[in-house]
Parts: sequence; structure tokens; C-alpha cells
Amino acid sequence: MENLRQTDQVIRGWLKEIRKDVLGELHDPLSVAEKSSRKDLVTNVDKANEKKIIKYIRELDPEAKILGEEGQGDRVTDMQGHVWIIDPLDGTLNFVKQRDNFAVMIALYIDGTGVLGYIMDVMRDIIYGGGPQLGVFNQSGQLPKPANISLKDGLLGVSGPMLIHDKYHLQAIDEASSGVRIIGSAGIEFIQVLTGKQNGYISHLMPWDFAAGKILAETLDLSVTKVDGTPVDMLSSNDVLVSTRDTHKDILNMIR
Amino acid sequence: MENLRQTDQVIRGWLKEIRKDVLGELHDPLSVAEKSSRKDLVTNVDKANEKKIIKYIRELDPEAKILGEEGQGDRVTDMQGHVWIIDPLDGTLNFVKQRDNFAVMIALYIDGTGVLGYIMDVMRDIIYGGGPQLGVFNQSGQLPKPANISLKDGLLGVSGPMLIHDKYHLQAIDEASSGVRIIGSAGIEFIQVLTGKQNGYISHLMPWDFAAGKILAETLDLSVTKVDGTPVDMLSSNDVLVSTRDTHKDILNMIR
Repeated sequence: MENLRQTDQVIRGWLKEIRKDVLGELHDPLSVAEKSSRKDLVTNVDKANEKKIIKYIRELDPEAKILGEEGQGDRVTDMQGHVWIIDPLDGTLNFVKQRDNFAVMIALYIDGTGVLGYIMDVMRDIIYGGGPQLGVFNQSGQLPKPANISLKDGLLGVSGPMLIHDKYHLQAIDEASSGVRIIGSAGIEFIQVLTGKQNGYISHLMPWDFAAGKILAETLDLSVTKVDGTPVDMLSSNDVLVSTRDTHKDILNMIR
Repeated sequence: MENLRQTDQVIRGWLKEIRKDVLGELHDPLSVAEKSSRKDLVTNVDKANEKKIIKYIRELDPEAKILGEEGQGDRVTDMQGHVWIIDPLDGTLNFVKQRDNFAVMIALYIDGTGVLGYIMDVMRDIIYGGGPQLGVFNQSGQLPKPANISLKDGLLGVSGPMLIHDKYHLQAIDEASSGVRIIGSAGIEFIQVLTGKQNGYISHLMPWDFAAGKILAETLDLSVTKVDGTPVDMLSSNDVLVSTRDTHKDILNMIR
């Protein structure tokens, strides 16, 4: 691997190629299969993207381990060494039903520390990427740290099922915010928080759903923990809270 | 007033001018005031847009009555003659907190019948407009009628407060759909339904929130009624359901 800044450019190049592939499939019929339920889908595009991203990573970083949503990578049991965590198409239900509001995400962790993270909003053609050593950039420049607004002063993104089942008193938490929003893609929700358009996001997430977002959020001084305030586990599912620091305190106070 | 096709072009021209004004204000501090609550806001931009749209309408159609959200129009008590219903900035909370996901809407009713409707997604720079005699167009061409999908096969947009309070068994209705989405702007939610990205939208709305969307939706064979299936009242607030015809049946069956 080259130095970080060069690697950053290489990964952005991969994502641009993936975007071309996805746009080429947009008007063709999709091959859609259900995974755990009718709301948990996988398409031929998810699988093709993962295959291509894994090929790119193997060429760049042959010794690394790769954890991918669709299981074409490695069986990763620890975070030692180079671990790439990829979501080849996040928000598959949106992709299938809307052809909009979906993301592609790539993250590199070295010995458990987040080094590089990327979230591409495919339809808006924006890549948010970088890490603690580079900062966070999109095509328009470096992202500033979002204002540290409190729960009541911002819009909170949530998981629909968690809101409906009132997990963690989410209904009261949402009423204490300025309003609740549901987009249906963890990647796009992370972008909303990174850009200050939402003060937080709460959802049940798998590692590939939050691996890139965590790196970018922490680089911008946002908090990323489990909803109970404890550290997330990078190798299993977690109920994740990403938010400004003040919103984080406000939410933990309402949960405890 | 000229013929409908010319009027259509005139109104699109107004909206382009309004968009320039709004973009010019995007990076300036807003003057924000609370109306009924801290979640019900009005800004200097809402008011300036309304003033300008009313001026445009008075020049084009001097005898018409104008119903506008910010109250600078007329006190409209019936739908006789030409009635323009305008929302100078829909999704003000999104505008204030995100500078994204807000709309400008204009509708013309003649003797109670919807004739022309326009919804502009300001940040994506798309105007959806037309009516029963013209069809619905954006810059890319004429919109096809969305597929008549059932509740279970689509994503349903809802009002956050109505979902949290489980009005009309909305929690069960949402679980019966493919997933719930909350955007926070009636105009943008109507666009999602018009373009087939959502199979429906349910919210408590004022006339300016649904006047334009109703015309466009009905032109595309979508259903627009109160949530109980009765006709909406154009001069008061309503709990509105806009959806495909099959989703409409599915939802009414769950509510009754």
C-alpha cells in the first residue's frame, strides 16, 4: 500500500467505477432475493459490487482480511492487522423500490483503529471520505465539524422498526428533538449527521453499516457508541447511536 | 390569463425566480420565528417568497383569490372562481435545520376543480407541474403513471407525530408496508409518491400543503382523500392519504 493520501485517491477511483456499474444497471430489471425477511433484500448489484470491491482490495492490499455484507470476503474473527469492512450496497430496499437513497461504503481498520472510511451517495454523486489523519472531504472540499447542537435543536434519524416498538423510549426521545426523520439507509443517515443536517441517528446496525461512518464521524468530533453509551463491537450487530456530543448526553440521560 | 400551456410556462418561470432568491439566502443567517410551537417555524424567506408569488399572481390573474400559508393573501371562504393556493416554503423545519428537503408549491383551482399544480424541489432543482389537461412534467419530460402497487410492496411516507401516537393504527399499517419513511416536507413526500418511490403518504395537512400535490396525484391516477376515505376539504386542515389505488384500499381496510 502507498501512503494514505494516495490510498485515498485510489479508493475514490474504485467508487467512481462502482458508481458507473450501478448507473448502468438502474434501468434494467433487478434480480432480487429475500435474505432474513421480505424487508431484507439482496440484488445482483449488491453481489457484483462486492465482488469488484474485493478484487480491488486484494490487488492493493493482498494480506488484508475483508468483511463484506454479502459474504464473499473472509470470515473475520478479530481486528488484528488490516481489516477492510465493506457494504457494497447499503439501503437495498431503497435501491429496489426507489432507485435512490442508497450508498456504497468502504472502511479500513488497522489493528482495530479506523484509518480510512468512505460513504458514496450514489444518486447525488457525492463521496464523503477520509479519516483521522486526512480529515473528511467530498468533491467540494473539507467538511467542517458540525455544530455541537443539543437533542431539542436538531432532527434525529431513527430506524422505523425501533421507533414503532419504542425501543429505548425512542418515541419520547424523538418528541424531545425538533423532529424525527427516517431515510432507510445507514450510509445516507450517517451523511446527514456528518453534514450537520441531523443531530443524530439511532439504528440496529451490522459492522458494514457503521464501519465507514464511525471513522468519519469520530474524525468530525461526533460520538459513536452503542445506544447505552458503551463502545460498539466491530464484529457483531449493535444498536448504534451516532450524534453530536451534546445530543449524545441528552439521549443517554433519557435512556438511563 | 393566457391558455393553460402558456400559463404553465409562466408559473415555471416564477418558480425559477423564487429558486434564485432562496439560493441567495442559503448562506445568510435566517430570521426564524415560532408560530404554533418550536417545531412550527416561519422565516424571512417564507414571507419574501409569498409576497413575490402573490405579486406575480395579481399581475397575471387580478380577479383571483389567493390563499397562502403566511396569510399575506386573501381570506378565502369558498372555492368559487379562480383560487390560487400557495405554500411559499414547505418543510420550513428542514429548511432551517438542513437547508435541504424543502419545496415551493403553487396550485390553481377554478370553481373547485384543480387545474394547475406545481411542486418545486428547490435543492434538487426539479419542478413537477401540470394538471389534468396537460399531464405532469418535469424538466426531463412527462411523468408516467406510477405502478399501482399494494401496501406491502412499497415504502410508505408518514408524519412522525402521527406514527408516534399510532393514529389510525399507523404503526400496524407501516409494519404491513415494506418500510416507513419520514422526510418532513409534504411537497417532497408528494413527489416521492408521484414518482413511484413511495406507494403512499399520510399526514395532517393544511390546504397549501396538499393543494398542488392533489392535482398532480389525481392526474397520475393516484388517490387523494382524507384518511377515512372521504373527500378532502380544500379550505381546512385534513388528515390526508395520497397513495396508489391498491394501497388506498389496503389502508382503508386496516383503518375501518
